[in-house]
Amino acid sequence: MLTCFGESHGKCIGAVIDGCPAGLPLSEKDIQQELDKRRPGASKISTPRREKYLAEILSGIYNGFTTGAPICILVQNLDVDSRPYKLIKNRPRPGHADYSARVRYGGFNDFRGGGRFSARVTIAYTIAGAIAKKILNTINIEVLAHTTQIGPIRLSKKIASEEIRKNVYQNTVRCADPEIARLMENEVLKVMNEEDSLGGIVECIALSVPAGLGDPIFDTLDADLAKMVFNIPAVKGVEVGAGFGVASLKGSENNDQFIIDENRVTALTNNAGGILGGLSTGMPIVVRVAFKPTSSIAKKQKTVDLSQMKEVEMKLSGRYDPCIVPRAVPIVESCVAMVLVDHAIRLNIIPKVLQE
Amino acid sequence: MLTCFGESHGKCIGAVIDGCPAGLPLSEKDIQQELDKRRPGASKISTPRREKYLAEILSGIYNGFTTGAPICILVQNLDVDSRPYKLIKNRPRPGHADYSARVRYGGFNDFRGGGRFSARVTIAYTIAGAIAKKILNTINIEVLAHTTQIGPIRLSKKIASEEIRKNVYQNTVRCADPEIARLMENEVLKVMNEEDSLGGIVECIALSVPAGLGDPIFDTLDADLAKMVFNIPAVKGVEVGAGFGVASLKGSENNDQFIIDENRVTALTNNAGGILGGLSTGMPIVVRVAFKPTSSIAKKQKTVDLSQMKEVEMKLSGRYDPCIVPRAVPIVESCVAMVLVDHAIRLNIIPKVLQE
Amino acid sequence: MLTCFGESHGKCIGAVIDGCPAGLPLSEKDIQQELDKRRPGASKISTPRREKYLAEILSGIYNGFTTGAPICILVQNLDVDSRPYKLIKNRPRPGHADYSARVRYGGFNDFRGGGRFSARVTIAYTIAGAIAKKILNTINIEVLAHTTQIGPIRLSKKIASEEIRKNVYQNTVRCADPEIARLMENEVLKVMNEEDSLGGIVECIALSVPAGLGDPIFDTLDADLAKMVFNIPAVKGVEVGAGFGVASLKGSENNDQFIIDENRVTALTNNAGGILGGLSTGMPIVVRVAFKPTSSIAKKQKTVDLSQMKEVEMKLSGRYDPCIVPRAVPIVESCVAMVLVDHAIRLNIIPKVLQE
Amino acid sequence: MLTCFGESHGKCIGAVIDGCPAGLPLSEKDIQQELDKRRPGASKISTPRREKYLAEILSGIYNGFTTGAPICILVQNLDVDSRPYKLIKNRPRPGHADYSARVRYGGFNDFRGGGRFSARVTIAYTIAGAIAKKILNTINIEVLAHTTQIGPIRLSKKIASEEIRKNVYQNTVRCADPEIARLMENEVLKVMNEEDSLGGIVECIALSVPAGLGDPIFDTLDADLAKMVFNIPAVKGVEVGAGFGVASLKGSENNDQFIIDENRVTALTNNAGGILGGLSTGMPIVVRVAFKPTSSIAKKQKTVDLSQMKEVEMKLSGRYDPCIVPRAVPIVESCVAMVLVDHAIRLNIIPKVLQE
Repeated sequence: MLTCFGESHGKCIGAVIDGCPAGLPLSEKDIQQELDKRRPGASKISTPRREKYLAEILSGIYNGFTTGAPICILVQNLDVDSRPYKLIKNRPRPGHADYSARVRYGGFNDFRGGGRFSARVTIAYTIAGAIAKKILNTINIEVLAHTTQIGPIRLSKKIASEEIRKNVYQNTVRCADPEIARLMENEVLKVMNEEDSLGGIVECIALSVPAGLGDPIFDTLDADLAKMVFNIPAVKGVEVGAGFGVASLKGSENNDQFIIDENRVTALTNNAGGILGGLSTGMPIVVRVAFKPTSSIAKKQKTVDLSQMKEVEMKLSGRYDPCIVPRAVPIVESCVAMVLVDHAIRLNIIPKVLQE
Repeated sequence: MLTCFGESHGKCIGAVIDGCPAGLPLSEKDIQQELDKRRPGASKISTPRREKYLAEILSGIYNGFTTGAPICILVQNLDVDSRPYKLIKNRPRPGHADYSARVRYGGFNDFRGGGRFSARVTIAYTIAGAIAKKILNTINIEVLAHTTQIGPIRLSKKIASEEIRKNVYQNTVRCADPEIARLMENEVLKVMNEEDSLGGIVECIALSVPAGLGDPIFDTLDADLAKMVFNIPAVKGVEVGAGFGVASLKGSENNDQFIIDENRVTALTNNAGGILGGLSTGMPIVVRVAFKPTSSIAKKQKTVDLSQMKEVEMKLSGRYDPCIVPRAVPIVESCVAMVLVDHAIRLNIIPKVLQE
Repeated sequence: MLTCFGESHGKCIGAVIDGCPAGLPLSEKDIQQELDKRRPGASKISTPRREKYLAEILSGIYNGFTTGAPICILVQNLDVDSRPYKLIKNRPRPGHADYSARVRYGGFNDFRGGGRFSARVTIAYTIAGAIAKKILNTINIEVLAHTTQIGPIRLSKKIASEEIRKNVYQNTVRCADPEIARLMENEVLKVMNEEDSLGGIVECIALSVPAGLGDPIFDTLDADLAKMVFNIPAVKGVEVGAGFGVASLKGSENNDQFIIDENRVTALTNNAGGILGGLSTGMPIVVRVAFKPTSSIAKKQKTVDLSQMKEVEMKLSGRYDPCIVPRAVPIVESCVAMVLVDHAIRLNIIPKVLQE
Repeated sequence: MLTCFGESHGKCIGAVIDGCPAGLPLSEKDIQQELDKRRPGASKISTPRREKYLAEILSGIYNGFTTGAPICILVQNLDVDSRPYKLIKNRPRPGHADYSARVRYGGFNDFRGGGRFSARVTIAYTIAGAIAKKILNTINIEVLAHTTQIGPIRLSKKIASEEIRKNVYQNTVRCADPEIARLMENEVLKVMNEEDSLGGIVECIALSVPAGLGDPIFDTLDADLAKMVFNIPAVKGVEVGAGFGVASLKGSENNDQFIIDENRVTALTNNAGGILGGLSTGMPIVVRVAFKPTSSIAKKQKTVDLSQMKEVEMKLSGRYDPCIVPRAVPIVESCVAMVLVDHAIRLNIIPKVLQE
């Protein structure tokens, strides 16, 4: 179970992971490696907030192994510049949580950099995801995400998991096809120059997930995946397998017919995305997630001044990614890994003490 | 909080609702009215399983009012014919939970009619939804769902909430546009004759939801909506507001610019679907849900015989809807209502004792 | 996980047990056997409410085995006489929940027979306990409760588990020592004639519980036992092992010194009651529970009339046990069994599918 | 909701409090004040571990007010000396969690200073309690604890809440009666010289709690209090009101007869300890908690060497309190305050945004 704390411009972002089995080898390096995947400053298309995220383990590890006690891991906020945010105190940015948060918390919320609503909170997800992936490794489950769409540029050909492993971190947009990646990069640069931003889609695949994971009802595997993924800021849609495409299919097209392959039950197709009845089927889990374009844009927009209750115009400065999709790739991976490890623990597939 | 029990071919389907405020007037008629909306046998395009669902209140009501104690409501299963299901004991139906459930429960699951994985369990959701809607009524929140796509037929024009209220239950496909409804009905009949089935999309709108509902993180309003809706059998995708469409939008197109209307903050557009930062914005909540085509089709399909581990062909008999989307309309409504009422209770908007 | 519903004078009491492993043989007879242990009308010292409790399984069982789906089991309320309760509508009975419930539920609570606050709700605990004990049996854990005090009569000698097994259901007070049992019975009869009632203490022992059960913190084994047991009406105290006696002990007296017996670690004493650091130690779990005297007594008492806000005198009629302790014995057993099975499931000691 | 992390000899102890209403003024001084109450080194009768606990707020506060986001507060572990603990790696201390934890966590647990099982984790409870008490203050609820027994010395006279407020922090044993306090202090010193330790009892009273708090069933007020308090290390018993004493009372003695006082309903006695049917009655909540004598004593004891599976003798060095009861006083207060604030939030008594 993940508890997280911290704000964009506060002292730090932290994650507390409870329920991690004892006996997992774990070091700050394991965490750092995953954090580096989502680091801004990694490329010309991301925010100039250039700090290095440094993970610090506060508890739960002894002699290099998890102890079974809650693991707290912190990342300090170093390169913080809150000046550009004074503007937004009374002027909610379109597309942001500024307005709804102000109503919810009576104006007491820390609005600097979006505060608790900044994508920066996903540092905590990445930390927990790093641990989840290490646990899943012990039962050979692999979780792989990649960008399939940025703005108008889509990856339409079928991608082998080998290509994801090989190519995704070789380009700045985290696309498994190098050619499409180039197109996506160009698109981002173009829109960046227009002082605008782009949305996109991340696909995540989990391999070697055994059949039977999930707790119907109400904790089905797809429901828990959808819930976790919707907790990532900027997500507006989640689909499994053929997803929204099923609306246009006939049953005879959509049903994955069962066959036997090397004495194991499998299916001719995977429109189910590896989940039927809320339970994993043993086929790859396939989840797709829609991210909206970065809300913070330099272009002029309309908003209201809440202290005067009048309409105003706003031009945001500050440091923003023109497209958050590339950074979302390791975050979606982390979310999927967390849900899978939780269900694997529930189903007794992962022991309470891991033996080396 | 909803707990539910019962199987497709067991004695009954039941719902236990805990945490309902005391003092809500509630009778079996209130429940029956909602159950009737999802009744099969209501039209030529649905399953011939013709029983009337009769709601029976077992607890939690005294003198016509909720008492604050758990409310248990049952619907007996009357018109059950389990004979056609003997076939599937060892032969999992493509697109169904038969295989994954068999692995999960070691073959002990009640497979008759899909057992616990039948859409029949959503009777419990409808019961809880009926209560949730009555509670939401006391704070003027209205939840309205309608069919926007069945197979290739889509509703593309913008629909006013007035049209939903007026038209949805006037046709068998629960579409707010009478002309599109006719096209959808024809499409369903056509596919029915082909012994095949169709999927579709249900849209749900919640009106007058105050700003600030939701508990970030990890119980954001959209995450909880997505989770609840993914617990409906056959759902493969959920989106909020512009949904997957955001992937192709620029920030300047997607951001809903704030304006002031009659001294209240509102926005020019609602691409956010009424949710920003996981909190309601005060604009209508808009959720869209993709349903796969009914998995049970009479057409010949491939599957495997698990007792012999060999591939076989299968032709299903039994009673199935060629398209479950129309029946899903009140169920989606119920799920959205349940999540809204839970968050409204958390936020102290609904008192623990309702005064008449 | 247990959800329960129903009121003393409503239609029924019901239990929904979710998370029970598939593959457990279970019939109504298994439940009935446990229900019969707490049946009133079993002796001259209990309430004349003489109905037989009949358990009816509504879901979760197929072909005589649990399916992994939620199990709902009902007991109808048959011999209900609500007439004597009209009196209490505005006149809260001393020692009862009448007043606090009225405030909490704004007067909408079903007050007849105490409604939701009647000890009758523990039928649901007994049902769940019957299942829990069957599951614990599969890993050889045995749970045994007995009466150690009724009013001034205490069982002071040490009791062997064999005596509990043999004697407890041979007398009406559920005491493991036949001689003390007779004294207790006499005491109850005496107080019954005085139109008064008696409290007492139930001790519960769980044998063969493996070391390591419990989830510190905040779900330690003792904390969960205490919470569950305090949900039994009339409980005013819970202690583990030496309990309140530890206050008067020195460390050197209280510490259970470890020894080795037949190559296993055990201890010379068991002041810990089988729990250290919130985790089971492998020694017997020992829990003691204090029950207050039945609040409903025929003797004249002072109370207030809430409709007139004036003090009045009250003489209760109706049917009451002069001492509920004997009936509490199987209920405490059930509560302890439920907590142990939950923790055994968490710790992977009980598989998700039980093989015959 | 409190999540906590950290070990006795790790880097720090931390608390994450989620769900705290926005708008509460909160500073490190507020926390420090409560931490100082439980500080060792405060007197000659407590452990020589002399560090000052310094609370550091990491998140959830902005401009001096809670923001509604999770509040993380840390206390660094400074004066740590792990050398004496090498001994216990294979030799579990009698009365400690060393053995059960080793079994549970497969030996991966951080055993130094008891690790996660040290009373030091209650720093987190004190932090959360400090916040809980500030919230309760806004609705005039006051929580007061004091020592009523240490070893053979008992406080038997009735104590007014005024005496608790005035005297408890004037002596080292946290007793409300100065004379009894002196006797207790002497007793502790005596046993200290014998290289032994003492247990005792802490009583906690909550004043001005409105009637109706608690969620039956299964989250009754007494059940939640018992669970929280049993999560304090060394607790072996919890009782409410007359507690275990009820076993010897008759109904006519135990029932608190209702009266009217200044047009409010109250009762002649408070054997119920302010809770009936799991709901608060409006009378003072009274909880009593039994603490065992400190397990770590310098006296020679028997234990086993687990690496050699043989019996050995053990003499503990290290720094221990001869009696932890005085330090437990603010911790019990904190636990009771946390439970009350949670139930007050559930019951809408505390708003989501506190206005100054």
